[in-house]
Amino acid sequence: MAKTFTHRLRVRYSECDQQGVVFNGHYLFFYDVAVTELWRELIEDYASMVEGGSDVVVAEARIRYVEGARFDDLLDIEMNVAHLGTTSMIVRPVFRVGERLIADGEIRHVFVDPAAGGKKEMPANVRRALEPLLPEAE
Amino acid sequence: MAKTFTHRLRVRYSECDQQGVVFNGHYLFFYDVAVTELWRELIEDYASMVEGGSDVVVAEARIRYVEGARFDDLLDIEMNVAHLGTTSMIVRPVFRVGERLIADGEIRHVFVDPAAGGKKEMPANVRRALEPLLPEAE
Amino acid sequence: MAKTFTHRLRVRYSECDQQGVVFNGHYLFFYDVAVTELWRELIEDYASMVEGGSDVVVAEARIRYVEGARFDDLLDIEMNVAHLGTTSMIVRPVFRVGERLIADGEIRHVFVDPAAGGKKEMPANVRRALEPLLPEAE
Amino acid sequence: MAKTFTHRLRVRYSECDQQGVVFNGHYLFFYDVAVTELWRELIEDYASMVEGGSDVVVAEARIRYVEGARFDDLLDIEMNVAHLGTTSMIVRPVFRVGERLIADGEIRHVFVDPAAGGKKEMPANVRRALEPLLPEAE
Repeated sequence: MAKTFTHRLRVRYSECDQQGVVFNGHYLFFYDVAVTELWRELIEDYASMVEGGSDVVVAEARIRYVEGARFDDLLDIEMNVAHLGTTSMIVRPVFRVGERLIADGEIRHVFVDPAAGGKKEMPANVRRALEPLLPEAE
Repeated sequence: MAKTFTHRLRVRYSECDQQGVVFNGHYLFFYDVAVTELWRELIEDYASMVEGGSDVVVAEARIRYVEGARFDDLLDIEMNVAHLGTTSMIVRPVFRVGERLIADGEIRHVFVDPAAGGKKEMPANVRRALEPLLPEAE
Repeated sequence: MAKTFTHRLRVRYSECDQQGVVFNGHYLFFYDVAVTELWRELIEDYASMVEGGSDVVVAEARIRYVEGARFDDLLDIEMNVAHLGTTSMIVRPVFRVGERLIADGEIRHVFVDPAAGGKKEMPANVRRALEPLLPEAE
Repeated sequence: MAKTFTHRLRVRYSECDQQGVVFNGHYLFFYDVAVTELWRELIEDYASMVEGGSDVVVAEARIRYVEGARFDDLLDIEMNVAHLGTTSMIVRPVFRVGERLIADGEIRHVFVDPAAGGKKEMPANVRRALEPLLPEAE
């Protein structure tokens, strides 16, 4: 069975709109927090990778909204690594509050050279750390 | 040829991250501003529709990021209405700075009853106003 | 000696601007998170108070910026309760990263009736819970 | 009589909280937009000043909240330049929706060297452009 990394954060008052639910754009901000914490837990400080000459950007993002999360909810972001390419990575996040499905999606990342700007191979330590999270991993 | 509605806004300093480009989550906030302005221009004040008993929520959003917009850029959001269903609507926004393609995507909306919460038919005046923007319209 | 409540949060990537520091407006968002956590720790869920017929709004806010906090910093927000009036409350937050002073300020709150909208006396349980944090408390 | 610069912006849906009013922290984001537009109108592109070796940061901000602005309101930000020091500048913004006073405040800025980081004299072209806005100017 694949390992999974889940990050939990608490919904802030300022993130809820006048319908009383989290405004849709905030989920990509939440996802970014989960990426940072995934890196810290499994790889290294995100900033260390950037100093080492690699960065990860979002090339495409898709979010499906099922139910609104609310102020003070504890939101769990399950980070399912779905694909590790040569220069790319796909994550399928699932957002839940307790057992309730809030949203899910698919984010395609590309590794880049922060100085030169172009695509770049995924660093070996990133690949090594994330491979156990792939669905085919055992 | 289909008519198109485009909203222009200026990128704020606070929307750019330390790579000097707009953080990816902001595009859904920009898109929401463009929806509000599309409504105002072609239909009615957004708040009037809500008072009239209908609201529109985002059911699914996809954004493909091509190039980063930067502080002070004038960002054009072209709102291509791609589909008008019974209770749903699909818009394919294209974000440009001048001639440069910044991002594009597809947003699926659902009309809901803001009081009861369930799906609801698209109001007739909304359909009438948006039909001329469909690609098959002449 | 007065007791103090401190909330720690981690600076998000999206909160830093292209100078690499937290954009100045975010500190009031951070402060609001600290208020929510102060309430949870010492009084009750913030939402319970609102359901009970009282809410707290910000009437005036002052922040002095000493040094920029950065991405991934652990930011401590020390919530010094400076005054408890009949319908008002003053907090002097201090923001630190480790020993470094990042910012400090003074926030004046007013208790209001969320339904009627006007000022309202501070609930007795709030006063009881916060009095031990006053500087004159022993 | 002193000249005044006023910037108008429209309140976004995502900036309003579940009380239906603009969340307090957004006013410093609005103020920053008004500074950028003041610069563009009276001085030069903000980015040009930074490229020229000077930047302006916020050293202290105070906002007094009188009434909540709401979704779709046209918010006018009147930028009253109150003081021009050697390395500092004080602006007293007033936020209004039509004739209604929403908020006012005082922002103290410091001019800095973006490369070296320390304080720096206000550029001569900035001083020349802003002096006519001082209250004692005629």
